[in-house]
Amino acid sequence: MKVKVSRRAHFNAAHRLYRQDWDDKTNQDVFGKCNNPRYHGHNYELIVSVTGPIDPETGFVMDMKVLKDLIREEIEDAFDHKNLNEEVAEFKKLNPTAENIAVVIWNKLRPHLNESLELEVQLFETPRNFVTYTG
Amino acid sequence: MKVKVSRRAHFNAAHRLYRQDWDDKTNQDVFGKCNNPRYHGHNYELIVSVTGPIDPETGFVMDMKVLKDLIREEIEDAFDHKNLNEEVAEFKKLNPTAENIAVVIWNKLRPHLNESLELEVQLFETPRNFVTYTG
Amino acid sequence: MKVKVSRRAHFNAAHRLYRQDWDDKTNQDVFGKCNNPRYHGHNYELIVSVTGPIDPETGFVMDMKVLKDLIREEIEDAFDHKNLNEEVAEFKKLNPTAENIAVVIWNKLRPHLNESLELEVQLFETPRNFVTYTG
Amino acid sequence: MKVKVSRRAHFNAAHRLYRQDWDDKTNQDVFGKCNNPRYHGHNYELIVSVTGPIDPETGFVMDMKVLKDLIREEIEDAFDHKNLNEEVAEFKKLNPTAENIAVVIWNKLRPHLNESLELEVQLFETPRNFVTYTG
Amino acid sequence: MKVKVSRRAHFNAAHRLYRQDWDDKTNQDVFGKCNNPRYHGHNYELIVSVTGPIDPETGFVMDMKVLKDLIREEIEDAFDHKNLNEEVAEFKKLNPTAENIAVVIWNKLRPHLNESLELEVQLFETPRNFVTYTG
Amino acid sequence: MKVKVSRRAHFNAAHRLYRQDWDDKTNQDVFGKCNNPRYHGHNYELIVSVTGPIDPETGFVMDMKVLKDLIREEIEDAFDHKNLNEEVAEFKKLNPTAENIAVVIWNKLRPHLNESLELEVQLFETPRNFVTYTG
Repeated sequence: MKVKVSRRAHFNAAHRLYRQDWDDKTNQDVFGKCNNPRYHGHNYELIVSVTGPIDPETGFVMDMKVLKDLIREEIEDAFDHKNLNEEVAEFKKLNPTAENIAVVIWNKLRPHLNESLELEVQLFETPRNFVTYTG
Repeated sequence: MKVKVSRRAHFNAAHRLYRQDWDDKTNQDVFGKCNNPRYHGHNYELIVSVTGPIDPETGFVMDMKVLKDLIREEIEDAFDHKNLNEEVAEFKKLNPTAENIAVVIWNKLRPHLNESLELEVQLFETPRNFVTYTG
Repeated sequence: MKVKVSRRAHFNAAHRLYRQDWDDKTNQDVFGKCNNPRYHGHNYELIVSVTGPIDPETGFVMDMKVLKDLIREEIEDAFDHKNLNEEVAEFKKLNPTAENIAVVIWNKLRPHLNESLELEVQLFETPRNFVTYTG
Repeated sequence: MKVKVSRRAHFNAAHRLYRQDWDDKTNQDVFGKCNNPRYHGHNYELIVSVTGPIDPETGFVMDMKVLKDLIREEIEDAFDHKNLNEEVAEFKKLNPTAENIAVVIWNKLRPHLNESLELEVQLFETPRNFVTYTG
Repeated sequence: MKVKVSRRAHFNAAHRLYRQDWDDKTNQDVFGKCNNPRYHGHNYELIVSVTGPIDPETGFVMDMKVLKDLIREEIEDAFDHKNLNEEVAEFKKLNPTAENIAVVIWNKLRPHLNESLELEVQLFETPRNFVTYTG
Repeated sequence: MKVKVSRRAHFNAAHRLYRQDWDDKTNQDVFGKCNNPRYHGHNYELIVSVTGPIDPETGFVMDMKVLKDLIREEIEDAFDHKNLNEEVAEFKKLNPTAENIAVVIWNKLRPHLNESLELEVQLFETPRNFVTYTG
């Protein structure tokens, strides 16, 4: 009797899409205005979902306060009001596309969850563009 | 050619998280302010999804009016403007966490649907906390 | 050059609409299922707006962190996960309709704001029912 | 390391649910007010999701601008501000239920995507009624 | 001590923007694809707001069930699943722009409300286009 | 018979709150993490509202396509995917708070509208923080 429990969070950050090992023209051709060297930014909305059996003692799959605190410590404190390219270690050499950010978030949260639980990360770059990663 | 059809509904209810067989301190430690003995409440948003083949006659997986009426009769009429702990039979001895409410809703709807159809229940306790149960 | 700045917050609470000085039948006739003596509840969404001139030094009408903290201390801490009728002093003798809750919130916030600022309180009882009070 | 990327779009259209080969009474019995012979309409919200591996070069599963343009050319230009029954070839003989519209959208997009990518179409007829098709 | 109380409702309808007394080219030049002679449609979202003093007896400006029923009888029953141009008397000779629909709704509701109450109608043609009329 | 017509738009941008004429400590004390020298960013949602009489010829206060194009040319093209502090002339010496951005947008749009029309600008920096300016 598995249930998926989901928690919504958010952070505001600046980013730029580009590759250091490409020349300017290639970066511009592939990433367009997302390649603005002076950055742009987003209100990222994040939904973290954990799937597992309901604990018959508590009626919880997982205490939502614990999940909320985990997201705040691992993700919000690390990403909120930051420049992802310059200030977040994971993106020093990794292009901060929505896809890559979702994978980084998943990798940061995974070690803190019981192995029996499944993890899904959904990241909205804008209300119209979003990605989902399940490991 | 299976399609999932989804219908959104809602109900407002009071609840309290606690176990009768635990002492006050344990209830408080585990459930925090959700254990307020005088209750608190939520606008629960509910999405019921049914998956099955499209009926070639009607173009429907299932008539949405039938699904809407089923949700109203089985769930809204039973839960809306109620105190879940005190007035809903299923929670007399079951802690009304979002997880347990979703399972109860699924169990109440399942017998009314054709066996060939799959059922999913998604319940938003708040816009930030929600659960999904598929049986 | 006046600007209105708005901040959204929320709290979950239980309530019941009724008057102690009315008999049961009158309460039921007037308030219907909102009169359930065992309470029901809502996720209240609150928008607090403050109108005034932009401070030429900061570019702020008012520091949103200050407004956010004020709402948390005066409203969220007092109302969240509470039974409004039984646990919030202002509603001991005042029917906690959305209208009355909005007025109470306005009255609690008003003394903490500079007299030159205008205050508006908008309270969503549900996404479909909401009220606005400007003093 | 597969990721699902999603793009939201929308179109406004008129439609009517009925079958030419049924008599008026049967159409009315089955489709109710959705059978209004003078049509009614919707703001359709569409979410198109593509699942595949992240391209290590770009950090994209698929360039969202390409997906956005594909949706505009294949779906929005064909359906927006149209009468689905009378002006869209696919519905000349197919009842434009949400289910059938989702399948038609999926079939129109599928040939334009690399075979290695999975495609999901989610169509909101209203905020309360929506369908999901994955082929 | 006046409060504004608001109620959200919705209806789905088909319409076409054009004037019978203009030639086809002028209609097309002015109304573009909204002039499609076979109609298109919308999910109209409607917010009706009534402003007045709080009744000290009930704590209501106006019973929301009464307002909800009034909107259903006067607006939803008249407009939902209808072709506004062909089936709603008010638009036989009046172009059903969002502006005109809002004025018609205001005029239909006004006689049913106490003279001491102010009325505001807000109509969303889409989530991006909306109008507000206060008489 | 005046009606307010509103159009929603959006742009993504990076910004930083600070004053060049203040020292680092003062900037940090007043603007906190919004003062990050490497910038952060937002998905700004913008609602532009124009109030005036309905043109009896068209049924419009103003053609929404004209308003949509005006917002795109004057605001979206100037602000979208930009660093407001470094790349938008108006903020070279003006702190890009939500208040100041709203005033700048109002000043950019005002000259393009007929004098008889009133203009309101509402800017959401996040879904929880927003400002309104009416001139």
